[in-house]
Amino acid sequence: MEQHKIAVIRVVTIEEEKLNLHGKLIEKYFPNLITESYCIPDQYNGVYDDISHEIATEKIIDIVKQIQSQYDGIIVSCAGDPAVEVLNQELDIPIVGAGHSVASYSLNFGDKIGVLGIREEAPEAVKKILGDKLVKSAKPVKVNNTNDLLTEEGKKSVIEAAKKLEEAGVDTIILACTGLSTIGVAKYLNDNIGIPVIDPVFSEALVMNSICKYKYFF
Amino acid sequence: MEQHKIAVIRVVTIEEEKLNLHGKLIEKYFPNLITESYCIPDQYNGVYDDISHEIATEKIIDIVKQIQSQYDGIIVSCAGDPAVEVLNQELDIPIVGAGHSVASYSLNFGDKIGVLGIREEAPEAVKKILGDKLVKSAKPVKVNNTNDLLTEEGKKSVIEAAKKLEEAGVDTIILACTGLSTIGVAKYLNDNIGIPVIDPVFSEALVMNSICKYKYFF
Repeated sequence: MEQHKIAVIRVVTIEEEKLNLHGKLIEKYFPNLITESYCIPDQYNGVYDDISHEIATEKIIDIVKQIQSQYDGIIVSCAGDPAVEVLNQELDIPIVGAGHSVASYSLNFGDKIGVLGIREEAPEAVKKILGDKLVKSAKPVKVNNTNDLLTEEGKKSVIEAAKKLEEAGVDTIILACTGLSTIGVAKYLNDNIGIPVIDPVFSEALVMNSICKYKYFF
Repeated sequence: MEQHKIAVIRVVTIEEEKLNLHGKLIEKYFPNLITESYCIPDQYNGVYDDISHEIATEKIIDIVKQIQSQYDGIIVSCAGDPAVEVLNQELDIPIVGAGHSVASYSLNFGDKIGVLGIREEAPEAVKKILGDKLVKSAKPVKVNNTNDLLTEEGKKSVIEAAKKLEEAGVDTIILACTGLSTIGVAKYLNDNIGIPVIDPVFSEALVMNSICKYKYFF
Protein backbone atom coordinates (compact mmCIF):
# COMPACT_ATOMS: atom_id res chain seq x y z
CA MET A 1 0.00 0.00 0.00
CA GLU A 2 1.43 3.32 -1.17
CA GLN A 3 1.94 5.69 1.78
CA HIS A 4 1.67 9.48 1.67
CA LYS A 5 3.12 12.00 4.08
CA ILE A 6 0.54 14.66 4.84
CA ALA A 7 0.75 17.88 6.87
CA VAL A 8 -2.39 18.72 8.82
CA ILE A 9 -2.85 22.41 9.63
CA ARG A 10 -5.11 23.10 12.60
CA VAL A 11 -6.64 26.58 12.41
CA VAL A 12 -6.77 27.03 16.16
CA THR A 13 -3.89 27.41 18.58
CA ILE A 14 -3.76 24.23 20.65
CA GLU A 15 -1.48 22.63 23.16
CA GLU A 16 1.04 20.04 21.99
CA GLU A 17 -0.75 16.94 23.35
CA LYS A 18 -4.01 17.72 21.54
CA LEU A 19 -2.43 19.00 18.34
CA ASN A 20 -2.61 15.75 16.37
CA LEU A 21 -6.19 14.79 17.20
CA HIS A 22 -7.40 15.32 13.62
CA GLY A 23 -4.23 13.70 12.32
CA LYS A 24 -4.99 10.58 14.35
CA LEU A 25 -8.54 10.46 12.96
CA ILE A 26 -7.23 10.85 9.41
CA GLU A 27 -4.79 7.96 9.92
CA LYS A 28 -7.53 5.81 11.43
CA TYR A 29 -9.82 6.35 8.42
CA PHE A 30 -7.06 6.10 5.80
CA PRO A 31 -4.07 4.23 7.22
CA ASN A 32 -1.88 4.97 4.20
CA LEU A 33 -1.90 8.67 5.08
CA ILE A 34 0.88 9.42 7.56
CA THR A 35 0.29 12.80 9.18
CA GLU A 36 2.21 15.50 11.00
CA SER A 37 0.27 18.33 12.59
CA TYR A 38 0.81 22.08 12.87
CA CYS A 39 -1.32 24.87 14.26
CA ILE A 40 -1.52 28.59 13.65
CA PRO A 41 -0.10 30.76 16.46
CA ASP A 42 -1.96 33.16 18.76
CA GLN A 43 -5.51 32.31 17.71
CA TYR A 44 -7.00 30.44 20.65
CA ASN A 45 -10.61 30.58 19.44
CA GLY A 46 -9.79 29.52 15.90
CA VAL A 47 -11.79 30.67 12.88
CA TYR A 48 -15.31 31.86 13.71
CA ASP A 49 -15.97 35.01 11.66
CA ASP A 50 -14.69 36.86 8.59
CA ILE A 51 -11.89 38.64 10.42
CA SER A 52 -10.53 35.53 12.15
CA HIS A 53 -10.75 33.77 8.75
CA GLU A 54 -8.64 36.47 7.09
CA ILE A 55 -6.05 36.49 9.86
CA ALA A 56 -5.83 32.69 9.80
CA THR A 57 -5.38 32.69 6.01
CA GLU A 58 -2.14 34.65 6.23
CA LYS A 59 -0.82 32.44 9.02
CA ILE A 60 -1.64 29.24 7.10
CA ILE A 61 0.14 30.52 4.00
CA ASP A 62 3.22 31.30 6.12
CA ILE A 63 3.29 27.82 7.64
CA VAL A 64 2.65 26.00 4.35
CA LYS A 65 5.41 27.88 2.52
CA GLN A 66 7.90 26.79 5.16
CA ILE A 67 6.94 23.11 5.30
CA GLN A 68 5.48 22.15 1.91
CA SER A 69 8.67 20.63 0.50
CA GLN A 70 8.52 17.90 3.15
CA TYR A 71 5.03 16.61 2.27
CA ASP A 72 2.97 14.88 -0.43
CA GLY A 73 -0.05 16.99 0.46
CA ILE A 74 -1.46 19.53 2.90
CA ILE A 75 -4.80 19.33 4.68
CA VAL A 76 -6.18 22.59 6.05
CA SER A 77 -8.44 21.12 8.69
CA CYS A 78 -11.16 23.77 8.62
CA ALA A 79 -14.53 23.86 6.84
CA GLY A 80 -13.97 27.49 5.86
CA ASP A 81 -11.11 26.38 3.58
CA PRO A 82 -8.91 29.36 4.50
CA ALA A 83 -5.93 29.70 2.14
CA VAL A 84 -6.89 26.59 0.16
CA GLU A 85 -7.75 28.21 -3.17
CA VAL A 86 -4.75 30.53 -3.25
CA LEU A 87 -2.32 27.77 -2.21
CA ASN A 88 -3.72 25.37 -4.79
CA GLN A 89 -2.80 27.86 -7.49
CA GLU A 90 0.73 28.24 -6.18
CA LEU A 91 1.87 24.78 -5.11
CA ASP A 92 2.49 21.54 -6.93
CA ILE A 93 1.20 19.29 -4.16
CA PRO A 94 -2.53 18.98 -3.36
CA ILE A 95 -4.01 21.32 -0.74
CA VAL A 96 -7.30 20.00 0.60
CA GLY A 97 -9.79 21.79 2.84
CA ALA A 98 -12.63 20.29 4.86
CA GLY A 99 -15.21 22.62 3.29
CA HIS A 100 -15.07 21.60 -0.38
CA SER A 101 -14.47 18.00 0.70
CA VAL A 102 -17.52 17.61 2.91
CA ALA A 103 -19.75 19.59 0.54
CA SER A 104 -18.81 17.63 -2.58
CA TYR A 105 -18.99 14.30 -0.78
CA SER A 106 -22.46 15.05 0.62
CA LEU A 107 -23.88 15.24 -2.93
CA ASN A 108 -23.58 11.45 -3.12
CA PHE A 109 -26.12 11.15 -0.30
CA GLY A 110 -28.83 13.67 -1.14
CA ASP A 111 -29.84 16.88 -2.84
CA LYS A 112 -31.47 18.76 0.04
CA ILE A 113 -28.48 19.50 2.21
CA GLY A 114 -28.54 21.00 5.69
CA VAL A 115 -25.37 22.65 6.99
CA LEU A 116 -24.57 22.56 10.69
CA GLY A 117 -21.68 24.79 11.73
CA ILE A 118 -20.62 27.43 14.21
CA ARG A 119 -21.76 30.41 12.12
CA GLU A 120 -25.27 31.40 11.09
CA GLU A 121 -24.33 31.12 7.44
CA ALA A 122 -22.60 28.19 5.79
CA PRO A 123 -18.94 28.77 4.84
CA GLU A 124 -18.45 30.31 1.37
CA ALA A 125 -16.57 27.22 0.14
CA VAL A 126 -19.52 25.04 1.10
CA LYS A 127 -22.16 27.38 -0.33
CA LYS A 128 -20.32 27.59 -3.63
CA ILE A 129 -20.34 23.81 -4.13
CA LEU A 130 -23.86 23.14 -2.89
CA GLY A 131 -25.55 25.97 -4.81
CA ASP A 132 -29.33 25.59 -4.61
CA LYS A 133 -28.97 22.18 -2.95
CA LEU A 134 -28.18 24.02 0.29
CA VAL A 135 -31.61 24.05 1.91
CA LYS A 136 -30.89 25.34 5.39
CA SER A 137 -28.00 26.31 7.68
CA ALA A 138 -28.07 26.01 11.44
CA LYS A 139 -25.82 27.09 14.27
CA PRO A 140 -26.21 25.44 17.66
CA VAL A 141 -27.37 28.03 20.21
CA LYS A 142 -24.66 28.89 22.74
CA VAL A 143 -21.90 27.77 20.38
CA ASN A 144 -19.84 30.62 18.94
CA ASN A 145 -16.45 29.05 18.41
CA THR A 146 -14.74 25.67 18.34
CA ASN A 147 -14.06 25.65 22.10
CA ASP A 148 -17.77 26.02 22.95
CA LEU A 149 -18.27 22.63 21.32
CA LEU A 150 -16.17 20.98 24.01
CA THR A 151 -18.71 21.74 26.77
CA GLU A 152 -21.63 19.44 27.62
CA GLU A 153 -24.03 22.29 26.88
CA GLY A 154 -22.39 22.77 23.49
CA LYS A 155 -22.79 19.10 22.56
CA LYS A 156 -26.45 19.07 23.56
CA SER A 157 -27.01 22.15 21.50
CA VAL A 158 -25.43 20.48 18.42
CA ILE A 159 -27.82 17.55 18.69
CA GLU A 160 -30.82 19.88 18.96
CA ALA A 161 -29.70 21.83 15.90
CA ALA A 162 -29.28 18.62 13.87
CA LYS A 163 -32.78 17.48 14.83
CA LYS A 164 -34.17 20.85 13.70
CA LEU A 165 -32.48 20.48 10.32
CA GLU A 166 -34.00 17.03 9.95
CA GLU A 167 -37.44 18.38 10.85
CA ALA A 168 -36.98 21.13 8.26
CA GLY A 169 -36.84 18.42 5.59
CA VAL A 170 -33.17 18.21 4.63
CA ASP A 171 -32.12 14.72 3.45
CA THR A 172 -28.44 14.98 4.43
CA ILE A 173 -26.53 17.01 7.03
CA ILE A 174 -23.02 18.37 6.61
CA LEU A 175 -21.02 19.16 9.73
CA ALA A 176 -19.37 22.40 8.60
CA CYS A 177 -16.88 22.85 11.41
CA THR A 178 -14.03 20.44 12.10
CA GLY A 179 -14.53 21.12 15.82
CA LEU A 180 -17.56 18.86 15.37
CA SER A 181 -15.15 16.07 14.37
CA THR A 182 -13.06 16.81 17.45
CA ILE A 183 -16.06 16.06 19.69
CA GLY A 184 -16.95 12.98 17.61
CA VAL A 185 -20.59 13.91 17.23
CA ALA A 186 -21.14 12.44 13.73
CA LYS A 187 -21.38 8.89 15.05
CA TYR A 188 -23.87 9.88 17.71
CA LEU A 189 -26.00 11.76 15.18
CA ASN A 190 -25.84 8.95 12.62
CA ASP A 191 -27.07 6.56 15.29
CA ASN A 192 -29.82 8.87 16.47
CA ILE A 193 -31.33 10.69 13.52
CA GLY A 194 -32.75 9.25 10.33
CA ILE A 195 -30.58 10.91 7.68
CA PRO A 196 -26.87 10.74 6.87
CA VAL A 197 -24.60 13.15 8.76
CA ILE A 198 -21.29 13.78 7.04
CA ASP A 199 -18.13 14.36 9.05
CA PRO A 200 -15.64 16.98 7.80
CA VAL A 201 -12.38 15.37 8.97
CA PHE A 202 -13.41 12.07 7.37
CA SER A 203 -14.23 13.98 4.19
CA GLU A 204 -10.94 15.90 4.00
CA ALA A 205 -9.05 12.63 4.56
CA LEU A 206 -11.13 10.93 1.87
CA VAL A 207 -10.41 13.63 -0.68
CA MET A 208 -6.68 13.80 0.13
CA ASN A 209 -6.37 10.02 -0.10
CA SER A 210 -8.26 9.97 -3.38
CA ILE A 211 -6.11 12.69 -4.94
CA CYS A 212 -2.92 10.87 -3.90
CA LYS A 213 -4.34 7.70 -5.48
CA TYR A 214 -5.47 9.62 -8.54
CA LYS A 215 -2.02 11.06 -9.13
CA TYR A 216 -0.59 7.57 -8.85
CA PHE A 217 -2.97 5.90 -11.31
CA PHE A 218 -3.65 8.64 -13.89
CA MET B 1 -8.20 -4.07 6.05
CA GLU B 2 -11.97 -4.49 5.99
CA GLN B 3 -13.12 -6.10 2.72
CA HIS B 4 -16.41 -5.48 0.96
CA LYS B 5 -18.17 -7.64 -1.60
CA ILE B 6 -19.49 -5.48 -4.41
CA ALA B 7 -21.62 -6.33 -7.44
CA VAL B 8 -20.74 -4.37 -10.58
CA ILE B 9 -23.57 -4.01 -13.10
CA ARG B 10 -22.44 -3.32 -16.65
CA VAL B 11 -25.12 -1.58 -18.69
CA VAL B 12 -24.08 -3.16 -21.96
CA THR B 13 -24.34 -6.78 -23.01
CA ILE B 14 -20.80 -8.12 -23.16
CA GLU B 15 -19.09 -11.42 -23.58
CA GLU B 16 -17.96 -13.35 -20.49
CA GLU B 17 -14.22 -12.67 -20.85
CA LYS B 18 -14.65 -8.89 -20.95
CA LEU B 19 -17.41 -8.72 -18.38
CA ASN B 20 -15.24 -7.93 -15.36
CA LEU B 21 -13.06 -5.24 -16.92
CA HIS B 22 -14.52 -2.47 -14.75
CA GLY B 23 -14.48 -4.82 -11.76
CA LYS B 24 -10.75 -5.36 -12.23
CA LEU B 25 -10.15 -1.60 -12.40
CA ILE B 26 -12.20 -1.08 -9.23
CA GLU B 27 -10.14 -3.73 -7.40
CA LYS B 28 -6.91 -2.19 -8.64
CA TYR B 29 -7.86 1.26 -7.33
CA PHE B 30 -9.40 0.02 -4.07
CA PRO B 31 -8.07 -3.44 -3.22
CA ASN B 32 -10.48 -3.90 -0.32
CA LEU B 33 -13.41 -3.97 -2.75
CA ILE B 34 -13.96 -7.51 -4.04
CA THR B 35 -16.16 -7.44 -7.14
CA GLU B 36 -18.40 -9.74 -9.12
CA SER B 37 -19.76 -8.50 -12.45
CA TYR B 38 -23.11 -8.76 -14.18
CA CYS B 39 -24.44 -7.28 -17.39
CA ILE B 40 -27.89 -6.49 -18.69
CA PRO B 41 -29.16 -8.85 -21.42
CA ASP B 42 -29.89 -8.06 -25.08
CA GLN B 43 -28.51 -4.52 -25.18
CA TYR B 44 -25.34 -4.73 -27.24
CA ASN B 45 -24.90 -0.97 -27.68
CA GLY B 46 -25.52 -0.15 -24.02
CA VAL B 47 -27.09 3.13 -22.88
CA TYR B 48 -26.83 5.93 -25.42
CA ASP B 49 -30.20 7.76 -25.47
CA ASP B 50 -33.35 8.20 -23.37
CA ILE B 51 -35.02 5.03 -24.62
CA SER B 52 -32.02 2.77 -24.05
CA HIS B 53 -31.67 4.38 -20.60
CA GLU B 54 -35.27 3.52 -19.73
CA ILE B 55 -34.99 -0.05 -20.98
CA ALA B 56 -31.72 -0.55 -19.09
CA THR B 57 -33.26 0.81 -15.89
CA GLU B 58 -35.84 -1.99 -15.75
CA LYS B 59 -33.22 -4.64 -16.48
CA ILE B 60 -30.89 -3.31 -13.77
CA ILE B 61 -33.68 -3.34 -11.19
CA ASP B 62 -34.45 -6.95 -12.11
CA ILE B 63 -30.83 -8.02 -11.70
CA VAL B 64 -30.28 -6.11 -8.46
CA LYS B 65 -33.40 -7.53 -6.83
CA GLN B 66 -32.16 -11.04 -7.50
CA ILE B 67 -28.59 -10.58 -6.28
CA GLN B 68 -28.59 -7.82 -3.65
CA SER B 69 -28.69 -10.12 -0.62
CA GLN B 70 -25.25 -11.46 -1.55
CA TYR B 71 -23.45 -8.07 -1.55
CA ASP B 72 -22.35 -5.18 0.65
CA GLY B 73 -23.02 -2.72 -2.17
CA ILE B 74 -23.94 -2.40 -5.84
CA ILE B 75 -22.14 -0.28 -8.43
CA VAL B 76 -24.13 0.59 -11.56
CA SER B 77 -21.18 1.24 -13.85
CA CYS B 78 -22.78 3.91 -16.03
CA ALA B 79 -22.55 7.71 -15.90
CA GLY B 80 -26.28 8.01 -16.58
CA ASP B 81 -26.97 6.42 -13.17
CA PRO B 82 -29.88 4.32 -14.46
CA ALA B 83 -31.92 2.81 -11.60
CA VAL B 84 -29.65 4.31 -8.94
CA GLU B 85 -32.08 6.74 -7.32
CA VAL B 86 -35.01 4.33 -7.20
CA LEU B 87 -32.88 1.47 -5.87
CA ASN B 88 -31.33 3.68 -3.20
CA GLN B 89 -34.79 4.34 -1.83
CA GLU B 90 -35.65 0.64 -1.74
CA LEU B 91 -32.53 -1.17 -0.58
CA ASP B 92 -30.51 -1.15 2.62
CA ILE B 93 -27.12 -1.49 0.94
CA PRO B 94 -25.49 1.40 -0.95
CA ILE B 95 -26.14 1.71 -4.70
CA VAL B 96 -23.55 3.87 -6.40
CA GLY B 97 -23.57 5.18 -9.96
CA ALA B 98 -20.70 6.62 -11.95
CA GLY B 99 -22.60 9.84 -12.72
CA HIS B 100 -23.11 11.31 -9.26
CA SER B 101 -19.70 9.96 -8.23
CA VAL B 102 -17.66 11.61 -10.97
CA ALA B 103 -19.67 14.84 -10.82
CA SER B 104 -19.38 15.27 -7.05
CA TYR B 105 -15.70 14.32 -7.03
CA SER B 106 -14.86 16.79 -9.80
CA LEU B 107 -15.94 19.70 -7.57
CA ASN B 108 -12.76 19.19 -5.55
CA PHE B 109 -10.72 20.09 -8.64
CA GLY B 110 -12.48 23.10 -10.12
CA ASP B 111 -15.65 25.07 -10.63
CA LYS B 112 -15.78 25.35 -14.41
CA ILE B 113 -16.47 21.78 -15.38
CA GLY B 114 -16.48 20.35 -18.90
CA VAL B 115 -18.34 17.11 -19.53
CA LEU B 116 -17.11 14.68 -22.16
CA GLY B 117 -19.52 11.85 -22.95
CA ILE B 118 -21.21 10.00 -25.77
CA ARG B 119 -24.30 12.22 -25.88
CA GLU B 120 -24.58 15.91 -26.83
CA GLU B 121 -25.95 16.73 -23.41
CA ALA B 122 -24.47 15.71 -20.08
CA PRO B 123 -26.39 12.97 -18.21
CA GLU B 124 -29.18 14.27 -15.93
CA ALA B 125 -27.44 12.90 -12.82
CA VAL B 126 -24.32 14.87 -13.71
CA LYS B 127 -26.17 18.08 -14.62
CA LYS B 128 -28.11 17.99 -11.36
CA ILE B 129 -24.96 17.89 -9.24
CA LEU B 130 -22.90 20.36 -11.24
CA GLY B 131 -25.62 23.01 -11.61
CA ASP B 132 -24.15 26.21 -13.01
CA LYS B 133 -20.62 24.82 -12.66
CA LEU B 134 -21.27 22.80 -15.81
CA VAL B 135 -19.70 25.08 -18.41
CA LYS B 136 -19.74 22.94 -21.54
CA SER B 137 -20.57 19.43 -22.76
CA ALA B 138 -18.88 17.73 -25.67
CA LYS B 139 -19.42 14.54 -27.61
CA PRO B 140 -16.59 13.16 -29.73
CA VAL B 141 -17.59 13.26 -33.39
CA LYS B 142 -18.18 9.79 -34.83
CA VAL B 143 -18.86 8.33 -31.37
CA ASN B 144 -22.49 7.43 -30.75
CA ASN B 145 -22.29 4.52 -28.34
CA THR B 146 -19.81 2.77 -26.10
CA ASN B 147 -18.57 0.43 -28.83
CA ASP B 148 -17.53 3.32 -31.08
CA LEU B 149 -15.00 4.23 -28.39
CA LEU B 150 -13.13 0.99 -29.02
CA THR B 151 -12.07 2.01 -32.54
CA GLU B 152 -8.89 3.99 -33.28
CA GLU B 153 -11.01 6.71 -34.87
CA GLY B 154 -13.15 6.85 -31.74
CA LYS B 155 -10.14 7.32 -29.45
CA LYS B 156 -8.70 10.09 -31.63
CA SER B 157 -12.03 11.80 -31.58
CA VAL B 158 -12.14 11.68 -27.75
CA ILE B 159 -8.78 13.40 -27.51
CA GLU B 160 -9.88 16.14 -29.92
CA ALA B 161 -13.07 16.72 -27.93
CA ALA B 162 -11.11 17.01 -24.67
CA LYS B 163 -8.75 19.57 -26.23
CA LYS B 164 -11.74 21.61 -27.40
CA LEU B 165 -13.16 21.64 -23.87
CA GLU B 166 -9.82 22.84 -22.53
CA GLU B 167 -9.69 25.58 -25.18
CA ALA B 168 -13.22 26.61 -24.19
CA GLY B 169 -11.88 27.49 -20.73
CA VAL B 170 -13.08 24.68 -18.49
CA ASP B 171 -10.74 23.99 -15.54
CA THR B 172 -11.67 20.31 -15.06
CA ILE B 173 -13.02 17.61 -17.40
CA ILE B 174 -15.40 14.82 -16.36
CA LEU B 175 -15.49 11.69 -18.48
CA ALA B 176 -19.23 11.05 -18.46
CA CYS B 177 -19.30 7.59 -20.00
CA THR B 178 -17.72 4.53 -18.37
CA GLY B 179 -16.78 3.32 -21.86
CA LEU B 180 -14.09 6.00 -21.59
CA SER B 181 -12.69 4.09 -18.60
CA THR B 182 -12.79 0.87 -20.64
CA ILE B 183 -10.44 2.44 -23.21
CA GLY B 184 -8.26 3.91 -20.44
CA VAL B 185 -8.17 7.37 -21.93
CA ALA B 186 -8.02 9.35 -18.65
CA LYS B 187 -4.33 8.63 -18.16
CA TYR B 188 -3.48 9.69 -21.69
CA LEU B 189 -5.49 12.90 -21.32
CA ASN B 190 -4.01 13.69 -17.89
CA ASP B 191 -0.55 13.33 -19.40
CA ASN B 192 -1.36 15.43 -22.46
CA ILE B 193 -3.64 18.27 -21.48
CA GLY B 194 -3.16 20.87 -18.78
CA ILE B 195 -6.26 20.34 -16.62
CA PRO B 196 -7.46 17.41 -14.49
CA VAL B 197 -9.52 14.76 -16.28
CA ILE B 198 -11.66 12.69 -13.92
CA ASP B 199 -12.32 9.02 -14.63
CA PRO B 200 -15.81 7.64 -13.91
CA VAL B 201 -14.88 4.07 -12.89
CA PHE B 202 -12.27 5.43 -10.47
CA SER B 203 -14.93 7.79 -9.09
CA GLU B 204 -17.62 5.14 -8.60
CA ALA B 205 -15.07 2.92 -6.83
CA LEU B 206 -13.98 5.84 -4.66
CA VAL B 207 -17.53 6.63 -3.59
CA MET B 208 -18.43 2.98 -2.92
CA ASN B 209 -15.28 2.47 -0.88
CA SER B 210 -15.91 5.66 1.08
CA ILE B 211 -19.52 4.72 1.87
CA CYS B 212 -18.43 1.26 3.08
CA LYS B 213 -15.82 2.96 5.29
CA TYR B 214 -18.34 5.54 6.43
CA LYS B 215 -20.82 2.89 7.54
CA TYR B 216 -18.02 1.20 9.46
CA PHE B 217 -16.80 4.29 11.32
CA PHE B 218 -19.99 6.34 11.88
